[in-house]
Amino acid sequence: MNSFQSVPMDDDMEGGNLGPYQERARVFPNMRTKPYTPLIFHLLTRINVRILFVLMLLGFGAIFYIGASTSPVIVFVFSVCIISFLLSIYLTKWVLAKDEGPPEMAQISDAIRDGAEGFFRTQYGTISKMAVLLGLVILSIYLFRSTTPQQESSGLGRSRSAYITVTAFLLGAMCSGIAGYVGMWVSVRANVRVSSAARRSAREALQIAVRAGGFSALVVVGMAVIGIAILYAIFYVWLGVDSPGAMKVTDLPLLLVGYGFGASFVALFAQLGGGIYTKAADVGADLVGKVEQGIPEDDPRNPAVIADLVGDNVGDCAARGADLFESIAAEIISAMILGGTMAQRCKIEDPSGFILFPLVVHSFDLVISSVGIFSIRNKGDLGAIEDPMSILQKGYSVTIILAVLTFGLSTRWMLYTEQAPSAWLNFALCGLVGIMTAYIFVWITKYYTDYKHEPVRTLALSSSTGHGTNIIAGVSLGLESTALPVLVISVAIVSAYWLGHTSGLVDESGTPTGGLFGTAVATMGMLSTAAYVLTMDMFGPIADNAGGIVEMSQQPESVREITDVLDAVGNTTKATTKGFAIGSAALASFLLFSAYMDEVATFANVPFNQVDIAIPEVFVGGLLGSMLIYLFSAWACSAVGRTAQEVVNEVRRQFIERPGIMDYKEKPDYGRCVSIVASASLREMIKPGALAIISPIVVGFVFRVLGYYTGHPLLGAKVVAAMLMFATVSGILMALFLNTAGGAWDNAKKYIETGALGGKGSDSHKAAVTGDTVGDPFKDTAGPSLHVLIKMLATITLVMAPIFL
Amino acid sequence: MNSFQSVPMDDDMEGGNLGPYQERARVFPNMRTKPYTPLIFHLLTRINVRILFVLMLLGFGAIFYIGASTSPVIVFVFSVCIISFLLSIYLTKWVLAKDEGPPEMAQISDAIRDGAEGFFRTQYGTISKMAVLLGLVILSIYLFRSTTPQQESSGLGRSRSAYITVTAFLLGAMCSGIAGYVGMWVSVRANVRVSSAARRSAREALQIAVRAGGFSALVVVGMAVIGIAILYAIFYVWLGVDSPGAMKVTDLPLLLVGYGFGASFVALFAQLGGGIYTKAADVGADLVGKVEQGIPEDDPRNPAVIADLVGDNVGDCAARGADLFESIAAEIISAMILGGTMAQRCKIEDPSGFILFPLVVHSFDLVISSVGIFSIRNKGDLGAIEDPMSILQKGYSVTIILAVLTFGLSTRWMLYTEQAPSAWLNFALCGLVGIMTAYIFVWITKYYTDYKHEPVRTLALSSSTGHGTNIIAGVSLGLESTALPVLVISVAIVSAYWLGHTSGLVDESGTPTGGLFGTAVATMGMLSTAAYVLTMDMFGPIADNAGGIVEMSQQPESVREITDVLDAVGNTTKATTKGFAIGSAALASFLLFSAYMDEVATFANVPFNQVDIAIPEVFVGGLLGSMLIYLFSAWACSAVGRTAQEVVNEVRRQFIERPGIMDYKEKPDYGRCVSIVASASLREMIKPGALAIISPIVVGFVFRVLGYYTGHPLLGAKVVAAMLMFATVSGILMALFLNTAGGAWDNAKKYIETGALGGKGSDSHKAAVTGDTVGDPFKDTAGPSLHVLIKMLATITLVMAPIFL
Repeated sequence: MNSFQSVPMDDDMEGGNLGPYQERARVFPNMRTKPYTPLIFHLLTRINVRILFVLMLLGFGAIFYIGASTSPVIVFVFSVCIISFLLSIYLTKWVLAKDEGPPEMAQISDAIRDGAEGFFRTQYGTISKMAVLLGLVILSIYLFRSTTPQQESSGLGRSRSAYITVTAFLLGAMCSGIAGYVGMWVSVRANVRVSSAARRSAREALQIAVRAGGFSALVVVGMAVIGIAILYAIFYVWLGVDSPGAMKVTDLPLLLVGYGFGASFVALFAQLGGGIYTKAADVGADLVGKVEQGIPEDDPRNPAVIADLVGDNVGDCAARGADLFESIAAEIISAMILGGTMAQRCKIEDPSGFILFPLVVHSFDLVISSVGIFSIRNKGDLGAIEDPMSILQKGYSVTIILAVLTFGLSTRWMLYTEQAPSAWLNFALCGLVGIMTAYIFVWITKYYTDYKHEPVRTLALSSSTGHGTNIIAGVSLGLESTALPVLVISVAIVSAYWLGHTSGLVDESGTPTGGLFGTAVATMGMLSTAAYVLTMDMFGPIADNAGGIVEMSQQPESVREITDVLDAVGNTTKATTKGFAIGSAALASFLLFSAYMDEVATFANVPFNQVDIAIPEVFVGGLLGSMLIYLFSAWACSAVGRTAQEVVNEVRRQFIERPGIMDYKEKPDYGRCVSIVASASLREMIKPGALAIISPIVVGFVFRVLGYYTGHPLLGAKVVAAMLMFATVSGILMALFLNTAGGAWDNAKKYIETGALGGKGSDSHKAAVTGDTVGDPFKDTAGPSLHVLIKMLATITLVMAPIFL
Repeated sequence: MNSFQSVPMDDDMEGGNLGPYQERARVFPNMRTKPYTPLIFHLLTRINVRILFVLMLLGFGAIFYIGASTSPVIVFVFSVCIISFLLSIYLTKWVLAKDEGPPEMAQISDAIRDGAEGFFRTQYGTISKMAVLLGLVILSIYLFRSTTPQQESSGLGRSRSAYITVTAFLLGAMCSGIAGYVGMWVSVRANVRVSSAARRSAREALQIAVRAGGFSALVVVGMAVIGIAILYAIFYVWLGVDSPGAMKVTDLPLLLVGYGFGASFVALFAQLGGGIYTKAADVGADLVGKVEQGIPEDDPRNPAVIADLVGDNVGDCAARGADLFESIAAEIISAMILGGTMAQRCKIEDPSGFILFPLVVHSFDLVISSVGIFSIRNKGDLGAIEDPMSILQKGYSVTIILAVLTFGLSTRWMLYTEQAPSAWLNFALCGLVGIMTAYIFVWITKYYTDYKHEPVRTLALSSSTGHGTNIIAGVSLGLESTALPVLVISVAIVSAYWLGHTSGLVDESGTPTGGLFGTAVATMGMLSTAAYVLTMDMFGPIADNAGGIVEMSQQPESVREITDVLDAVGNTTKATTKGFAIGSAALASFLLFSAYMDEVATFANVPFNQVDIAIPEVFVGGLLGSMLIYLFSAWACSAVGRTAQEVVNEVRRQFIERPGIMDYKEKPDYGRCVSIVASASLREMIKPGALAIISPIVVGFVFRVLGYYTGHPLLGAKVVAAMLMFATVSGILMALFLNTAGGAWDNAKKYIETGALGGKGSDSHKAAVTGDTVGDPFKDTAGPSLHVLIKMLATITLVMAPIFL
């Protein structure tokens, strides 16, 4: 690191002002890996942001009208969403008004933006083609399935439900894509502004990163909420819900499932492609740069450095945007379904309160998270630098306190019913259980991944005896770290269920029925600060990128120090968000599973409320479900490994063929690494993604046929249910293992880099870097993809249920 | 390696004939880590082997009398077992008659034997104390539980069933301990004889190793069979089974469950302690010796080398003996229970055929495996060396063919019934399914772990880009390798179930009931060549040890080449046995699970044949079960990592403090490493072992109490059932992952050592050695312990069922 600072500027390298630009023109010709980009992206990227929002506002006017004829709650939701969109426009304008720093920074930032946008276009081009194809498959499945007489009579015939499902699917896919794009769009613009601000003040840099993250968080959450609200309102009016003979409002949420599936579908491929991209570049860059050549991270001499920085944007920002969009959408829809089912069973007069409750919770989420984001201000900065983590934590505390208050308010408003006057209080407690679970999850993740605590220190110590013991210790740490979260989630599920069960809501025969809805409310509680958590998460890659730009543009050490601190904080927030995401995924899939059982019962017109794993076929379904998780993780990790090997070979080749690189006399060919990683990750994302989508369909269909020939009714549906449950459990554990091990390895390395156990360049550090590279695909490719996979399995079984019956 | 051969004998090191012995006396004073050894071991080890067997024969006389009054089948089983014991005595005498080679070999072998027997005594002292303690716990649980009126009337009152269970438990524990001791006893004697024979002929060395392995295999399998047969006969006569008013013979097998639990209990701690010992020594020796100092494996200069060689005996031989004993016992008992239940449901006149069938299958197993073992002879050796793998494979083929024949014979003899005349044919086909499954499992394991095939070659290639990519590729390979075995086991379960289901056996209401028994028969088919497979497995560590002795006693290169070939073959057979063990564990636990459901139904006097994972508490049970597997694996791996770090530090210290070691001028202090590893592994085996035993009991009890207060009957039993099933599935997958990844890493290293990708000493080789050290605890500590854990969970829930009700 110091070697770089002490080297005087070399004229050969930075020859005049024009030099670098000419150089760049030579270096980045093949940044856009494929010339073809879909028209929609041309249009979207060309339209001015303000015009886009004006167009959207016009559309909202029409939708407001429909909403008003549905329920006043919908109008409330619309209003909150629109206000937060306006807020997010303000945030963008604020961020974009900041300066881009000196030309060398802007130049690097342009290269990153080119790479990221180029990859995004190609990737989403592929994804959108697959989405359309899958839409056609769904359409044909629904057109050829059998419907119940009841459905036919309520106006929900074969073709109508087919079009509804496919429309919802495509809309969900599109919104998920937009969520990803928004995340990336802001991060490639904010990174350089954070770098530039870091030259002036740590506080300002922090604020820019937070507000940029806040922008995409508000858009992502707002879009999930408003998308579902619009679909709900349109279907409500179109199908004439609750008019005599027509569909009941309690059945309406099931029609929204396609939206969730579309969102999961896009999020899965976005996460896979982006995750492979970012980690292949990172691992490749580290293995040659750090381990073999001993140059620091993000050093401009490393030919894979631009690819690495591009990866942060496409992997962390774009993919996480799509991921959290999908989480929120899945959770809202499953809670609406359960609320509807319960309201119907209890014969509650106005069931819309129970159905629309999740939308209200997330509307409040937008409000309180905005307060949290705006609580981080540029005041002070007079005295010493405050710890950025504590600033973010303060904002989180503000948001959490407000969440508890607004959650109580929402339950009283939406869930009060004459039949059980104190039920709302029980549900408010369920929400509190969820909020506490989220908080404890964040704490546990911190304990296992922060080097202030025992586990990471032990891991760092194990590096001193070599690569082997480091890996063994990291794997053990990851496996062990699954225990506490599982205990917490177990307590949360059981206690929320019993709070709901004892809420006083009973069905006709007097049986308590509120249990599952209690779990649903706890999930909502957990996600009730989603927008703020997403902000903290987005903060990470932006700070990381800013640090990279600072390093590459050769800023003074003091600037680098500021971005280093922000980067370290970003690592912690990223890790904690993953704990949060997996916890909510666990709860959400349990809900979606119940929804699936309800749906099968509705279609098959027989009770279907048990999944008996003592039946051999059902047990086999479970075995296959768990195996799916292992195989998916294997393919995700090996994709990164393979692509990283390509990068390593390319970087080695460049160091050999251009010996001047190490002395700053020759510029490396960044573009080649970018294009290698881009094309490899597009190729590699297909196999695991296809596995996730095809295998539940195949298993369900095969066992349906087997059940038909062996006289076992509903065998396909049962086997798929077991597959789903076992996959969920295995997925939760595997994701916890992968995320925590990866985070711990990363921070053990960082701990050694602070000077412990020999510090940078020592043998311990080399072993720790090995651990870090192993952890990279764990925590940023396979792990986060599993979050999405778990929920996608739940939504795919819901949408594809007609095949299994 | 060559450096060693070229160094002339140094007088300082090997000063005269007395020198080494004096040296050894100085070096190994603290080999026996604790002075206390239990009396029973003093007695056992002092009694002459022949006298022991004469005493046993006398005992058999009495038991024969009881057996004769039970069933002629029992007499047949007794006879076969005694014949195979006589055969095994012949094998021992044959092996022991071989020469021990030159004094330097005997000296090393003595050191290994001292270390192994010392550790064994201390370890089994600890285990036996824990077993007695647990026996008291079981006794008190059974004395305070409630019994059904039916049980009381059949003479199986509270105290009688308590004593029966505890006696069976202690007998199972003792037999399991003896099985482990026998495995180790022969291996520490055979190793040096194999080394010595390797100086003369490869074929003779192979034959000694095979016959030594065969000895312990016959004893282990024979003891499992005769132990159960004796208990069965004694209980039959004692309880006056089938006399009016007394217990029915179909309920008898349930009383044997304690035997299976005792066996699992000892096997778990034997495997954990031994596994930690062997791999901590191995990893520690490799990390300093191979990676840091660049000296070959088993080099006498490495202070941890004796500990490593001791580890092969206590870890692989003793532990695997206990492990397979436990597998066979668990499988026989569960199949007997299921046979009894089915015979009762179908009202078969003479149900004893279905109950005693597993004993007959394993009696034939003893016969055909003996034929297989004796088919490997010392003929030929005139021409070129035949591939030892193909010799072993030929023996296996002979055994497999005989197994198919005798299995058909046994089904016709035992399972023919007037009620369904063709049922035996269906069951014979089930057996064939099992045999084929075993064969395919062996093939899949070979595909993923043998460097002749694609996966290991790709893994080796990934070493060329560094430690990080090697680990990522190995983890991916291991995760991916779970897919095919799961598909095979799924097909086996479903097809065996349907073969049994359609066998024509129906209950009173005409419902087919043979399904589960079909699965049981398939499991027996899988294990029908167990003795031969165990022989091949035991062959591995003996050959490995022989190689170590050859290397340490500085034999010519040609001798080392012979033992190297045998060692490589041993690695493959060890890996394939693990595939076999996990496959049979998967099937056996599915059977034990059914037995558990039956037992709960009997105790609670209500139907209990469903485990509904849609109930939140039951789902939580599953979550906890899967988590248990992760936590157990974590603790097993981290125990190895921690102990290995201690070894690394000790070895480094010795190299620094005794600089003469590297030049053969000073002798390293082997004893210190032995005692470090021994005490550490005794300490470290407690935590994971206790977790495995305590957690199902705690979970069952907590949810029983919760169910009591929330009005949910049998909640504890249901939650434990889900826990068991999810743990089984997760355990199968995790064990497959750990075993295969470990084996593949080992062979990728061996592949590079053949000269590929730069060969020994290259950077690729270093990366491959890192992978190998990571794989060591995976494949020899955590993986095999999971096999035992899976079955122990099943038996513990059976024995502890009264707590959950």
